Amino acid sequence: MEIGIETRGEPDIIDITMKVEKVVSETGIRNGIANIFVPGSTGAVTTMEYEPGLLKDLPNTLERVAPSNASYEHEKTWHDGNGHSHVRAAIIGPSITIPIRNGALRLGTWQQVVFLELDTRPRSRRIIVTCLGE
Amino acid sequence: MEIGIETRGEPDIIDITMKVEKVVSETGIRNGIANIFVPGSTGAVTTMEYEPGLLKDLPNTLERVAPSNASYEHEKTWHDGNGHSHVRAAIIGPSITIPIRNGALRLGTWQQVVFLELDTRPRSRRIIVTCLGE
Amino acid sequence: MEIGIETRGEPDIIDITMKVEKVVSETGIRNGIANIFVPGSTGAVTTMEYEPGLLKDLPNTLERVAPSNASYEHEKTWHDGNGHSHVRAAIIGPSITIPIRNGALRLGTWQQVVFLELDTRPRSRRIIVTCLGE
Repeated sequence: MEIGIETRGEPDIIDITMKVEKVVSETGIRNGIANIFVPGSTGAVTTMEYEPGLLKDLPNTLERVAPSNASYEHEKTWHDGNGHSHVRAAIIGPSITIPIRNGALRLGTWQQVVFLELDTRPRSRRIIVTCLGE
Repeated sequence: MEIGIETRGEPDIIDITMKVEKVVSETGIRNGIANIFVPGSTGAVTTMEYEPGLLKDLPNTLERVAPSNASYEHEKTWHDGNGHSHVRAAIIGPSITIPIRNGALRLGTWQQVVFLELDTRPRSRRIIVTCLGE
Repeated sequence: MEIGIETRGEPDIIDITMKVEKVVSETGIRNGIANIFVPGSTGAVTTMEYEPGLLKDLPNTLERVAPSNASYEHEKTWHDGNGHSHVRAAIIGPSITIPIRNGALRLGTWQQVVFLELDTRPRSRRIIVTCLGE
C-alpha cells in the first residue's frame, strides 16, 4: 500500500501515523510488523513526539550535523543546492519497521511516525507501507 | 514478545542481546527476521561492540551532535530538560531488524544489540521483539 | 542469502543494489520486504544517490559528527585507531528494510542501496539479505 503526501520543502516534518494506521487496519493483520519506506534519497522516516518545539529542534540539530551553507561536492555537479539534504537522509535512513499488536501500531503514547522532507523544494511523495504477519 | 528493562537515565547503554536471543529461541523460528522496537521517543536501539570505551565514546559523540546544554524549543514548553534526548532518538531511530539463521541472531562476533537510554531520568522500558519466518 | 564484498577501508561506499536485486529475484517473492543487515560493528547500510559528489560529501559529514582525530576511549584499550568507525556505525545503523513490489526492490529512481565501510582498513564483508512475502 502507498501513502501520498504533499510537502513544502525543508524543514517540513509530517505526521503520517494515522495514514499508516489506516493501512494496517485495512490489511486485517493482528500481529506482525509494518515497514515504512520512502523511495527517494532526500527524505527520511523516523518516529518522534510531534509537538511544535521539536519540529524546530530536529531541523536545528540536522543543521549542526550537515549545515545547509557548507560546501558539498554534489552541488558542484548538479547545482540543485540540496547536498545537505542527501547526506542527512542517508544518515537518518529511509526505513523503519514497527510492530503490529492487536491490529494497531505498537507505538509509545507520545510517539508518532513522521516523514522528514529534507529536500529544499516542495515534493509529492509516496510512502510505501508493507505489513506482514497474521 | 516484550523485554522489560530498568534504566538509570543518560548515558545508559544496555546490552539486550541475550534477552532478544531468548525470545528468538522461544518462537522456534529457524530462518527469518527479528524486529526490535522501542515504544517511546527518548530511547533508541542499535548495535555496537559492547565494551567500556565505546560506552563513553558513543555518548560523547551524541553530545557533539545534540549538546545537552544547547537551547531547545521543546524545553520552553515542557521544562523537562530532555530536548536533546528527543532529537538524538529521532536521528538514531526506534527500530532495527536482524536476520535469524539456524534459530539464532546472525550478528557479527563483536556486535551486540543495545538499548540506548537517552532520557535524562531512570525509566522502566518495554522493548518489543517480533520474529517472522519459519 | 549472503552477499560477499571486498572493501578498501574508509571512506569506501559500495553500491550493492544489483546484488540485492539478484537475491530478491532468486527468492521468487513478488510482494514483501527485503532486510539488509551487516554483521559487524564498523560498517553500516543505508540508501543514497550513488554519484561521485555525494561519495565525498557523506564521509565529510561523518567526519564532522565523529572526527577521526578526536580522542576515543575505545582506542586507549584496543589501539586499533577506529573508535570513530564504531560510533559512526552505531548512529547510522546496521539494517534497512526495503519493500519488494512485482519482484523488485521498490526504490526511488536515484536511490541505491549502499554498504558504508567505516573501518580504517580493507575488510572482507558479508551482507545478509532476508526476503519475506509471497
